[in-house]
Amino acid sequence: MSAPAIKAPARQMMELLEELAAFSAPGPGVSRLLYTPEWLQGQRFLQERMAALGMEVRTDGVGNVYGRFAGSQPAAKVILTGSHIDTVLNGGKYDGAYGIAAAVTALHYLRQNFGQPLRTVEAVAFCEEEGSRFPLAYWGSGNVTGLYDGSEAQRCADSAGVTIASAMEGCGLGRRPEDCGTAAAAGYAAGRAPLREDIGTFVELHIEQGIVLEQAGLEIGIVEAIVGQRRYSVKVAGSTNHAGTTPMGLRRDALAGAAEMLLAMEQAAIAAGNPLVATCGKLEAVPGTPNVIPGEVQFTLDVRHSEADALEHFCSMLLAAFEEIAWKRGLTLQATATLATAPAPMDTGLNQQLQHIARQQGRSFRSMVSGAGHDAQLFAPVCPTAMIFVPSRAGISHAPEEYSSPDELAAGLNLLTAVLYELAYKES
Amino acid sequence: MSAPAIKAPARQMMELLEELAAFSAPGPGVSRLLYTPEWLQGQRFLQERMAALGMEVRTDGVGNVYGRFAGSQPAAKVILTGSHIDTVLNGGKYDGAYGIAAAVTALHYLRQNFGQPLRTVEAVAFCEEEGSRFPLAYWGSGNVTGLYDGSEAQRCADSAGVTIASAMEGCGLGRRPEDCGTAAAAGYAAGRAPLREDIGTFVELHIEQGIVLEQAGLEIGIVEAIVGQRRYSVKVAGSTNHAGTTPMGLRRDALAGAAEMLLAMEQAAIAAGNPLVATCGKLEAVPGTPNVIPGEVQFTLDVRHSEADALEHFCSMLLAAFEEIAWKRGLTLQATATLATAPAPMDTGLNQQLQHIARQQGRSFRSMVSGAGHDAQLFAPVCPTAMIFVPSRAGISHAPEEYSSPDELAAGLNLLTAVLYELAYKES
Repeated sequence: MSAPAIKAPARQMMELLEELAAFSAPGPGVSRLLYTPEWLQGQRFLQERMAALGMEVRTDGVGNVYGRFAGSQPAAKVILTGSHIDTVLNGGKYDGAYGIAAAVTALHYLRQNFGQPLRTVEAVAFCEEEGSRFPLAYWGSGNVTGLYDGSEAQRCADSAGVTIASAMEGCGLGRRPEDCGTAAAAGYAAGRAPLREDIGTFVELHIEQGIVLEQAGLEIGIVEAIVGQRRYSVKVAGSTNHAGTTPMGLRRDALAGAAEMLLAMEQAAIAAGNPLVATCGKLEAVPGTPNVIPGEVQFTLDVRHSEADALEHFCSMLLAAFEEIAWKRGLTLQATATLATAPAPMDTGLNQQLQHIARQQGRSFRSMVSGAGHDAQLFAPVCPTAMIFVPSRAGISHAPEEYSSPDELAAGLNLLTAVLYELAYKES
Repeated sequence: MSAPAIKAPARQMMELLEELAAFSAPGPGVSRLLYTPEWLQGQRFLQERMAALGMEVRTDGVGNVYGRFAGSQPAAKVILTGSHIDTVLNGGKYDGAYGIAAAVTALHYLRQNFGQPLRTVEAVAFCEEEGSRFPLAYWGSGNVTGLYDGSEAQRCADSAGVTIASAMEGCGLGRRPEDCGTAAAAGYAAGRAPLREDIGTFVELHIEQGIVLEQAGLEIGIVEAIVGQRRYSVKVAGSTNHAGTTPMGLRRDALAGAAEMLLAMEQAAIAAGNPLVATCGKLEAVPGTPNVIPGEVQFTLDVRHSEADALEHFCSMLLAAFEEIAWKRGLTLQATATLATAPAPMDTGLNQQLQHIARQQGRSFRSMVSGAGHDAQLFAPVCPTAMIFVPSRAGISHAPEEYSSPDELAAGLNLLTAVLYELAYKES
């Protein structure tokens, strides 16, 4: 059996994608926020479907769902594949759900056509990745890998004041120390408690959520690394003054200062070159009245790079440039780090396998950096991890307009299925 | 009698100022928005006070209050002095009220000490200047001079949906065509209907609301001109995109474009020199999420200059520069003019008189441009008009911290009183 012989049933996957999309709160697109009724119905539907396909189904304390085909070598670690089932508010039907539908379809196809695998395979639907309801992200994969130990559930609340713990309880869920294995339970006491320590490999298939593949006219992206992120909240303070009676030379205009900073940031980011990106997405000028010089501006910074050193260097350099602009203008600057994640390199060996298969399958592909965060970055420090992208039309995601064509989705499915075959069925 | 002999009673004015400040909605500073209960009580208090001082008191259809000492030459036009009684929300106690308290004090002092004037003098409290409750400004002086004809009252509503007409009715007010004189009533039919056509001179005393006098260590500002203003609402549109997955080179970032525009505006304004000022006071980036590149930015422009040509030239040049920045970045630009007022030059003869008296009174003074709008600009096209400034501590106004010292306020009162003496008592 070689990769070209793999013919995973794309139609079955597309049907499952459509079925999942139906579990949504009202409104445009798909809205399936963590621990909402539509989320719960979606996870239950998926459990039933996995069971109907002959998988052993189980959920863990935070609501991740696993469908398993046990391997003939029970000592071998698990080959895990999947993605997250939650969406942003008014999101699309591919982000996350595609990786789940493809995982279930691929494993079922392999079981039907090639029998019991040597190594146990599992399809996973992580309960949460987006951070759209509660002020944290990767709740699903983070509990599995030990980024979280479950205690966050008591402290974290949504905008209505509902804690994760209370929302979980409403879904009949709840993570306790004894949910972990023995080693993990010890880790729980020590402050780090992965829900699972039996994962040997993780492969995630996902839409690109960017325009790189479309612009290059390529079918497949093989992710080299997921970028590290730094986020800051920056406050610039000057003097609130009358827009008519304050001559230009006597102003300490916080907004003019912020404008100079944003322009400096853009120029520095362009100069640094790909894959560095730097963005201000949110800016508020106070008091925000047309005829008053803003005395205060608060804005966000989002900086990403696939290399830790380059990320660190850029951020230090940028904040120093901001300081200089503030000083020159008689403004004060306060930059608070709000997020810092390290870059997550994917497994080189797995990526070579993926390239080899993609060539066999006649796919056009490239290696690329993922500028967005994904569940895969949580697994990268824990086990060999890989990630496959398919094109996103116009680079749009997190919107009802999110779209990848059936052919593009099928190409991703076939690559995933072939690599899972090699991982689970071939003697190593 | 010469100017140095004028000794207007500053204490009486300060007491009246304090009394007026008591008419305020709860909260910090003074809040006396048009046609609110505190506004109505303030205007009624003022009518009683004027009557107690021997003035003939009357109000017009929009609620302006006049206190008059009739002159012995009834054919001569009226010498009018005063300012506005409304405040911004949480404003100070000097902006507007100072000009009223000084006017009442000055005219009463002159009547007491020099008897009946040759020409009729009136102190006025305009009902509204700030534009803080309804989306128009100068409602008081604008109805007097014919900028408004009263019909706006039906169309204009505050943020709670209450129209000016209905708010006026609640105060027992309402402007009808027959409120105008015969000539004015004809003008009313023709679309322009000043409530009064008997005003011969208008003099307004006001706090500077800027830092120019304080920085220069001067006691008095004699206004050469009130700036003309142009306001615009500018919309910059690009593409909303994922902050992580969109390389710098593939972005159409509306906020980065807006930042470049604001910086260009600041540089051009500094290059143009005083008295030009240009300000962006309000900016909104959409969607306003830290990890999303803003696809749209809306910001305001406020540009002022005392010369019409220079104002026009700067605005055209600036909007052309904005167009170029937008074009270069693949953004679209839409600039909508939201306000355009012409510069209002004050009367040269009156200003010479003021300078002469200021010298006699031993005051340090300068000619200056008013960067803020004032009721006086409505009178400038109608009759000889002058405006006197006293220093504002730290240039602060429209805030509870607004302050001018009793000595500074007294100096302004004495100059106003002396010029009113010359205008009303001296044979021309």
